[in-house]
Amino acid sequence: MEEPEQSPAPERIAAPQAAAAAPEPGTDKPPLRIGMVGYAFMGAAHSQGWRTAGRVFDLPRRPVLAAICGRDADAVRAAAGRHGWAAAETDWRALIARDDVDLVDICTPGDSHAEIALAALAAGKHVLCEKPLANTVEEAEAMARAADAAYERGRLAMVGFNYRRVPATALARSMVAEGRLGTLRHVRVSYLQDWLVDPAFPLTWRLRKELAGSGSLGDLGAHIVDLAQYVAGEPLAGVSALTETFVRRRPLPGGPTSGLAAVSADGTGTVTVDDAALFTGRFASGALASFEATRYATGRKNALRLELNGERGSLAFDLERLNELWYHDATEPGAHAGFRRILVTEPDHPYLDAWWPPGHGLGYEHTFVHQARDLVHAVAEGRRPEPSFADGLQVQRVLAAVEESAEKNSVYTPIAA
Amino acid sequence: MEEPEQSPAPERIAAPQAAAAAPEPGTDKPPLRIGMVGYAFMGAAHSQGWRTAGRVFDLPRRPVLAAICGRDADAVRAAAGRHGWAAAETDWRALIARDDVDLVDICTPGDSHAEIALAALAAGKHVLCEKPLANTVEEAEAMARAADAAYERGRLAMVGFNYRRVPATALARSMVAEGRLGTLRHVRVSYLQDWLVDPAFPLTWRLRKELAGSGSLGDLGAHIVDLAQYVAGEPLAGVSALTETFVRRRPLPGGPTSGLAAVSADGTGTVTVDDAALFTGRFASGALASFEATRYATGRKNALRLELNGERGSLAFDLERLNELWYHDATEPGAHAGFRRILVTEPDHPYLDAWWPPGHGLGYEHTFVHQARDLVHAVAEGRRPEPSFADGLQVQRVLAAVEESAEKNSVYTPIAA
Amino acid sequence: MEEPEQSPAPERIAAPQAAAAAPEPGTDKPPLRIGMVGYAFMGAAHSQGWRTAGRVFDLPRRPVLAAICGRDADAVRAAAGRHGWAAAETDWRALIARDDVDLVDICTPGDSHAEIALAALAAGKHVLCEKPLANTVEEAEAMARAADAAYERGRLAMVGFNYRRVPATALARSMVAEGRLGTLRHVRVSYLQDWLVDPAFPLTWRLRKELAGSGSLGDLGAHIVDLAQYVAGEPLAGVSALTETFVRRRPLPGGPTSGLAAVSADGTGTVTVDDAALFTGRFASGALASFEATRYATGRKNALRLELNGERGSLAFDLERLNELWYHDATEPGAHAGFRRILVTEPDHPYLDAWWPPGHGLGYEHTFVHQARDLVHAVAEGRRPEPSFADGLQVQRVLAAVEESAEKNSVYTPIAA
Amino acid sequence: MEEPEQSPAPERIAAPQAAAAAPEPGTDKPPLRIGMVGYAFMGAAHSQGWRTAGRVFDLPRRPVLAAICGRDADAVRAAAGRHGWAAAETDWRALIARDDVDLVDICTPGDSHAEIALAALAAGKHVLCEKPLANTVEEAEAMARAADAAYERGRLAMVGFNYRRVPATALARSMVAEGRLGTLRHVRVSYLQDWLVDPAFPLTWRLRKELAGSGSLGDLGAHIVDLAQYVAGEPLAGVSALTETFVRRRPLPGGPTSGLAAVSADGTGTVTVDDAALFTGRFASGALASFEATRYATGRKNALRLELNGERGSLAFDLERLNELWYHDATEPGAHAGFRRILVTEPDHPYLDAWWPPGHGLGYEHTFVHQARDLVHAVAEGRRPEPSFADGLQVQRVLAAVEESAEKNSVYTPIAA
Repeated sequence: MEEPEQSPAPERIAAPQAAAAAPEPGTDKPPLRIGMVGYAFMGAAHSQGWRTAGRVFDLPRRPVLAAICGRDADAVRAAAGRHGWAAAETDWRALIARDDVDLVDICTPGDSHAEIALAALAAGKHVLCEKPLANTVEEAEAMARAADAAYERGRLAMVGFNYRRVPATALARSMVAEGRLGTLRHVRVSYLQDWLVDPAFPLTWRLRKELAGSGSLGDLGAHIVDLAQYVAGEPLAGVSALTETFVRRRPLPGGPTSGLAAVSADGTGTVTVDDAALFTGRFASGALASFEATRYATGRKNALRLELNGERGSLAFDLERLNELWYHDATEPGAHAGFRRILVTEPDHPYLDAWWPPGHGLGYEHTFVHQARDLVHAVAEGRRPEPSFADGLQVQRVLAAVEESAEKNSVYTPIAA
Repeated sequence: MEEPEQSPAPERIAAPQAAAAAPEPGTDKPPLRIGMVGYAFMGAAHSQGWRTAGRVFDLPRRPVLAAICGRDADAVRAAAGRHGWAAAETDWRALIARDDVDLVDICTPGDSHAEIALAALAAGKHVLCEKPLANTVEEAEAMARAADAAYERGRLAMVGFNYRRVPATALARSMVAEGRLGTLRHVRVSYLQDWLVDPAFPLTWRLRKELAGSGSLGDLGAHIVDLAQYVAGEPLAGVSALTETFVRRRPLPGGPTSGLAAVSADGTGTVTVDDAALFTGRFASGALASFEATRYATGRKNALRLELNGERGSLAFDLERLNELWYHDATEPGAHAGFRRILVTEPDHPYLDAWWPPGHGLGYEHTFVHQARDLVHAVAEGRRPEPSFADGLQVQRVLAAVEESAEKNSVYTPIAA
Repeated sequence: MEEPEQSPAPERIAAPQAAAAAPEPGTDKPPLRIGMVGYAFMGAAHSQGWRTAGRVFDLPRRPVLAAICGRDADAVRAAAGRHGWAAAETDWRALIARDDVDLVDICTPGDSHAEIALAALAAGKHVLCEKPLANTVEEAEAMARAADAAYERGRLAMVGFNYRRVPATALARSMVAEGRLGTLRHVRVSYLQDWLVDPAFPLTWRLRKELAGSGSLGDLGAHIVDLAQYVAGEPLAGVSALTETFVRRRPLPGGPTSGLAAVSADGTGTVTVDDAALFTGRFASGALASFEATRYATGRKNALRLELNGERGSLAFDLERLNELWYHDATEPGAHAGFRRILVTEPDHPYLDAWWPPGHGLGYEHTFVHQARDLVHAVAEGRRPEPSFADGLQVQRVLAAVEESAEKNSVYTPIAA
Repeated sequence: MEEPEQSPAPERIAAPQAAAAAPEPGTDKPPLRIGMVGYAFMGAAHSQGWRTAGRVFDLPRRPVLAAICGRDADAVRAAAGRHGWAAAETDWRALIARDDVDLVDICTPGDSHAEIALAALAAGKHVLCEKPLANTVEEAEAMARAADAAYERGRLAMVGFNYRRVPATALARSMVAEGRLGTLRHVRVSYLQDWLVDPAFPLTWRLRKELAGSGSLGDLGAHIVDLAQYVAGEPLAGVSALTETFVRRRPLPGGPTSGLAAVSADGTGTVTVDDAALFTGRFASGALASFEATRYATGRKNALRLELNGERGSLAFDLERLNELWYHDATEPGAHAGFRRILVTEPDHPYLDAWWPPGHGLGYEHTFVHQARDLVHAVAEGRRPEPSFADGLQVQRVLAAVEESAEKNSVYTPIAA
């Protein structure tokens, strides 16, 4: 126990009273009943977010884990039990049809996002959709239109770019918005992982274009495009891109599978997505941008790095040290200036007043707790959450421009407005 | 979504099936019903641990948050609701008396640990007691004896030195145990915080000897003594110590309070504990030790730093970057040797196989999830958990030797065996 | 005094002997007489290199600082005195004509490199030419041809890419050459400075195309193109580039000057070079490359950063911490792997056996000492030094391709072979 | 070439003029003729300092490397040639007797410091004496008295605590003096090396008490005691200490030697100094101090680390990254506060205006250049240099108190005033 608690009176034990049944948190508040589709990595992370948000934050509505959906009946029931969902479904249409679901949380691969989201919005549900919003611009456009229409009917839609909810990135955004950087000159971002370095790593769904849409571009690139634009507070205007697939054939996960188009006799299949995507570009203000997304950066496990340089200051962030934000204030006297490491664990930092005493850092999963918190507030207050489907669509357009530029010999390609 | 999932088949939606009610996780497993005393910082952290452990790890018994206890009836009911406890009590004796409580988790200040723990063990409960185990060696001795006796009857007792459950410190321990450091030469540890730098910070219970036992020594020093001995795998043999109280009078938290002994007319009271404690010492093997615990290290928020130097290698850790362990392998050729930053977020690291994909770091609170996990396993398997009350007693003896040395002009003081 | 000297016998004072006149180092060795053109930043740095090399390293020939040349007679005499040159000239042709000059060291801006270097080689001198080799590919081609011809006559030519001589980058090169990285996947390099962030910074010669050739591209970009290709051990095959001039008009250094083409009535002139250059590309092996050179990275003073990712490992370097090389060995067990910080200050590191005891780091200027050392060896042994003029020409071709791509809408532009 | 030169006019070549002989720097200034005793590690470092100071800084007197002294005639002549000394002596008395020596620079082991320094001062020379000032307090007292007396006659004496001359530590001192830290609470310092980890490392003079005086205490501990007191601006009041010799017998450097007292038949000898020294203490102001000096910190090559915590701020330094100073300003709003990394390479930092452009870091050896610069100024201006022999004596008293405390069971031992 090492907190600087203000209370002088410890929890001492006084006269006995009758034991009381304790109500669930916020039972005096209206529930917000969640139905989730998908139960893998993202499903687990979102579950943790929904379960925890109301226990840490004072929420206007009480999240209820109503039902979870997956196609394998046994697996989804096990997942429901493990993650705390009250019911399990094997058909997402049935999930959407449930009266006891107010919000549909879509944690499936990108190829099913559009169909599920459109149906959920049409059924009058709020929607939280994992990123990337869709696998194509066309799908994303339809989703953004549907979100607009739903908003007219009081239904909200949000896309799950959870890295906006790291306290350090949220602090960065607020510092940029306060003008602490002045005119932006440079935004450099990379998202470096290394799980494909081994050529024996199998051909999972993430390496197949028909399911994943793209490779590191949609997986990692979507995150950094959204995060960079969010923190900078302005959109990209155009990009010039290179993509590469270093290892073109990989072993099939469980031997030859009939469902795969490009299976060869040797038990390998063709990687149909990019392994790495590099692009430069310009922001609307004229700031220069540099992006790199790769799964081949040997030794880098989750290095999402962001740096912004402006006329008045700079900010830098690395997801591998997510409790830190580095800030250089160029208005200070040069003799004492330097990049300072702000430990973003203090009560006056975003989200932190509800958590632990100073210095007790958070982890990756808490971005999902914060995402759930923010979405519950938005629903309760009837205002559009951010990032919206329009934001997700705009990211999709950047990704499409990247692919187009890469196909066209890296020629500079404007982002469609 | 960026995980390197092995599964080639996404969670696609197949033929509809009937919705099924999902059981809580592990309902096929016997429950382990927890009763917790205290609901402040530690209470919240332990609650999070108990709630989450069974959702992340496959546990042999299912933790149930049965009842929580605190002396303020309204506050404890609110805490019960917020943190997910089924019932609330205002008398710890009543909590212990409950049939539906198997394990008592003590999260109160140190002055009540002994009384509650002894009663709980006597009542046939398992006990988890926050650190420091007690405020005096005598209390700790009684508790350790009671724990021994209880073990004979199949009841277990554990002390909550949660920093053993950071994956990086657990990895450090296993690397020392494997012999990777060889003969130890140096162990240097510090726990630096800064929340007392401001002389206007009020006189909370942590600054009063009758409640807290000691100041930074019992709060921070206990942590680092336990952690250093745990990772080193051997006990301290003796210490030479200095302690200091920099600011001797502080404002009372809510104005003059009759319950306080040393209240002056000016609304201030006397700080009766140490602000900082420094000690050097020797480990049993002859390795030299350096310890520092302070709440006046301006700018250091939670800098628990540990370094061990041995003949074959070194390890270094900093709680402000808790997902990292630094390792120097001195058996490598000098030209390529150096301290390496192990990102302790990979599946083959302690606790990590149950969490997220590589590189997705954990936070402070997860030490409590791991603590719950390990204790549930111990209970299910009937083996004594670590750190035991005997371990807690030994730490208490080190703290007592520190205080004795500080009183005796820093003279080297052996640790009682 | 803290060195681990091996000698057991200290320098104790024994029987008196007659005082002896001490010869200069290596007077038994043939001199290598240097004539240097230019005496600003680079002139000072090269002087330090020539003065020191023979005092630290055992050299086969003895560098003699014979003569220095600059157009301002008073200034060059002062510089000669300060930096230790025996004579001063105001005409570089006179310097080249001197019989007591064996090697001409060219430290002028890029627009005069070709003329001086060609004349010096024609006069039978060895040549060291600062980078970039020239301001145009044509000039560089002529220089490379002249260097080839001179080599036939036993005269050598080297270009001053001094960052190859940081012990850490030299170590990186040797580790790549040993195969420690395996197949390269990524090379990312940036050179970040911030001295143009202030729009009031004046229009120095470095901001004028007719003198500097280009801006950050030739100044910083040339360094990182050479260094990346050197460490990678292979050339770039093509690039896609963006360049930008953020601040287009700047105050003249000393008010309006007739010699400047674009002076306006308001005392400002036009910046005619790039402020920043970003480019991506491909190496010959297929590895992807990312480059950024800028003088607008607020807070970054001299951040030349290099990272290489290969199938078997990775290396990372930052000139702001030039005594460190970071190495990840991917062939190690994952549980103990991580980027290690090699402190490149040990006797078995490049150049280090001649310097201080372990851990006593070097600085920027020592790259010039090492450059002098290596060139003296090359001259004494009659072998072509590296980087050669051909290497300098190849860098020039990369810079030209960057400019061409930037002009052509970033289209991917192959590097001429 | 990447400096931000202000000059718009490059060094262009104009009309030919006659070549002119260049005078040595500052030949219009009176010489300061140095005679140095010792030519090993420190001799080389001091030589570099004397040679370079006048080429980088504008000095009021011109250092001349007049004569060097060592007992081996051949070796000292070789050293004279290599390091640039005009003459060589084999008897230090002869060196002192030379008319062409104004200042005697003592670079021998500590056991000869007192005799040489006293003789040199008596002979009317200025003296620079390597640290530690002496091997005993008595010797140091005599030296300090002699320095006082010499000062009356216009002769100066300085002790070579060169780490005061790292720009970052000099900046730290000035920031403390400006009141940026407020009331000091903590000073923690360590000097960690690892060159004795290998038990096969031989028994050099540094491991023999009769020559070295003490082990890591006098070698490393003297440095950190001086540096800590200098930066803090106040003396230590008392200490409590532990020392240890981990490896008590080591192989003789060249086999059995008759001159060694404790040689055994097996070719090993006894280590008679400490391997490590740990001490805590109190500064005059009441701030707590923690010191550690060791040669057994595996993997730490030259980690002199200093941290000061005050009511208003903190500073931290690590010699392994000597171009950086870390500063936490506690008067800033908490949300944006953090330790900032000041890159101490800018023109407004101590010593830096004479060196390279921003960001071009210095190395270890430049502390000796700065030391020479400061001493030349002191001599020219007739003011007592710092650190004085009195400062050296005070450090010696701290070291003596450390040894006394270690012998007396670590009891707190006041420092004699």
